[in-house]
Amino acid sequence: MRTMRIRLTTAGALSALLAAGIRANGQGDPLPSWNDGAAKQAIVHFVQATTTPGTATFVPAAQRIATFDQDGTLWVSHPIYAQLVFCLDRVPAVVKAKPELANTEPFKTVMSGDRAAMAKLTMKDLETIVMATLSGMTVEQFSVEVKQWMAQARDPRWKRRYDELAYQPMLELLAYLRANGFKTYIVTGGGQDFVRTYAEATYGIPPEQVIGSALGLSYGYDKAGKPFFMKEPKLLLNDDHAGKPETIHLMIGRRPYAAFGNSSGDQQMLEYTKAGDGLRLTMLVLHDDSTREYAYGPAQGLPNTKIGTFPQSLYDEAVKGGWVVISMKNDWKRIFAFEP
Amino acid sequence: MRTMRIRLTTAGALSALLAAGIRANGQGDPLPSWNDGAAKQAIVHFVQATTTPGTATFVPAAQRIATFDQDGTLWVSHPIYAQLVFCLDRVPAVVKAKPELANTEPFKTVMSGDRAAMAKLTMKDLETIVMATLSGMTVEQFSVEVKQWMAQARDPRWKRRYDELAYQPMLELLAYLRANGFKTYIVTGGGQDFVRTYAEATYGIPPEQVIGSALGLSYGYDKAGKPFFMKEPKLLLNDDHAGKPETIHLMIGRRPYAAFGNSSGDQQMLEYTKAGDGLRLTMLVLHDDSTREYAYGPAQGLPNTKIGTFPQSLYDEAVKGGWVVISMKNDWKRIFAFEP
Repeated sequence: MRTMRIRLTTAGALSALLAAGIRANGQGDPLPSWNDGAAKQAIVHFVQATTTPGTATFVPAAQRIATFDQDGTLWVSHPIYAQLVFCLDRVPAVVKAKPELANTEPFKTVMSGDRAAMAKLTMKDLETIVMATLSGMTVEQFSVEVKQWMAQARDPRWKRRYDELAYQPMLELLAYLRANGFKTYIVTGGGQDFVRTYAEATYGIPPEQVIGSALGLSYGYDKAGKPFFMKEPKLLLNDDHAGKPETIHLMIGRRPYAAFGNSSGDQQMLEYTKAGDGLRLTMLVLHDDSTREYAYGPAQGLPNTKIGTFPQSLYDEAVKGGWVVISMKNDWKRIFAFEP
Repeated sequence: MRTMRIRLTTAGALSALLAAGIRANGQGDPLPSWNDGAAKQAIVHFVQATTTPGTATFVPAAQRIATFDQDGTLWVSHPIYAQLVFCLDRVPAVVKAKPELANTEPFKTVMSGDRAAMAKLTMKDLETIVMATLSGMTVEQFSVEVKQWMAQARDPRWKRRYDELAYQPMLELLAYLRANGFKTYIVTGGGQDFVRTYAEATYGIPPEQVIGSALGLSYGYDKAGKPFFMKEPKLLLNDDHAGKPETIHLMIGRRPYAAFGNSSGDQQMLEYTKAGDGLRLTMLVLHDDSTREYAYGPAQGLPNTKIGTFPQSLYDEAVKGGWVVISMKNDWKRIFAFEP
């Protein structure tokens, strides 16, 4: 957090001229990686309207909840989810522990290293791999494994750690909301134990504000009588589609005032947010920048995808419901912090 | 909160002489309803040790998590849980909506008003009543019903609202921990939707810090296309025994430094807390005051109970593990705020 705030302040000082129409706060533009346009204006208007005391749109600090999908909203999710790469990378360890899996599909295909065959794995195959690789260890062991993997693994395109592929404009948005008293939450279809290992360092979001899919746990005692939790291969929470507002109710118990997503899995979270009284901000990131990131929809004639689908029907609902579509190509001046 | 803090300050000023050995904070004794003794000393020692920078026992503010069972720990749970009274009181409304239940057990017995017959209902009967009376409405409707009930219902012994039966020493303890940077959570076998309706006003605990048992929700749309959640008669989280540390991991993702309970359902939460590194505080409230509240165990030869059992084996584990047993009779000067 401290690092990010310093970075923001410096960037803000450099782009002071851009701050027209934005509350100065004595710190310049809080969103320097956003181009001036409808998306940026919607954010600034929302923050000013909900935090100015005495107005009809004012929201008391305790109720300022903002929820963010992660994959494709806060960081890159193409060509496949980072957590799925982690799961595939863990298959050899699982097969070593259970040698009988070496000749069992889909583990056999993954162990072959045949990329073409792996690309043909079905969703059911991937679920089998996910369940096997995310369970069978204690929550502490899992946390250690994820941290080790995150330090070593590199995205094949940018040759960067996955946590470096967070979107700089969204990091600024998170910091801007928090600076204005909003509590920022991640609400992800990904595993919450996975995301919690890096969410604080990457996004400034503490573990208790990371909500996600979760496996059941079993409680046991080691030889010294010390209790531990094993991660079991059964899905307790599936935090996608209607599961998102359901876990928001379960874990926060308040309706968000702002929600951010990028795909049909986020539709219900945004609907639920927008259906509240007063001013609510709902935004969808559209991946329309094939040069700097990826382009997929298939809304607006963009190529179709299996990961993070943004169908035209969602685009139409956004337009009809007053949701704001963020064009990565047009609204974001810079996508990654590591860009020059 | 504001009211409570003022009350504490006043009480503190009156009992300044009692403050020996307690950090003054310029406010006098923060725990005026506690008698001097091992329990009070353990609390004050723990808070001082975990919040004094530069010591080996110092805990950074973000990690200061304290979890509290509710029934029997923060408020009265005898002769039966307040939420169960709510459920029984709701049976006529459920039968009115579904007249076929009038001749079906256990609803028939409840509708008869025959107290002797009701006292003989089995746990399975009560579960049937709980599921039927806590489901079949939206989360908003449920919240309204609980608030109306809480405003009207009276405990038969003290003729007070149930939320007036919170233990004053525990309210002081909650406030004292929060004043020292601890985040206080409720972790209850009761329903989290139920407890969230009054937890902020009663305990100063906001909805996102109330963890409890929860029913599944179904997502739907009304005629205007507005989304809503119905409470379904299926148990999603059973927040008792090992379910307590499991939901703590699920919703907080950090191990508590302090945990408070009163019965065998809290055993795993206290074990899990105590098993962490560094200094941890684990305490059990023993109901040994038949005059001012109730006396039940059956630890220490107290009468047995169906609600909130405190068996001798739990007492022995507490002694062995360095947990602190709070004697209501000896450790609490005052039990309720309404006492003279």
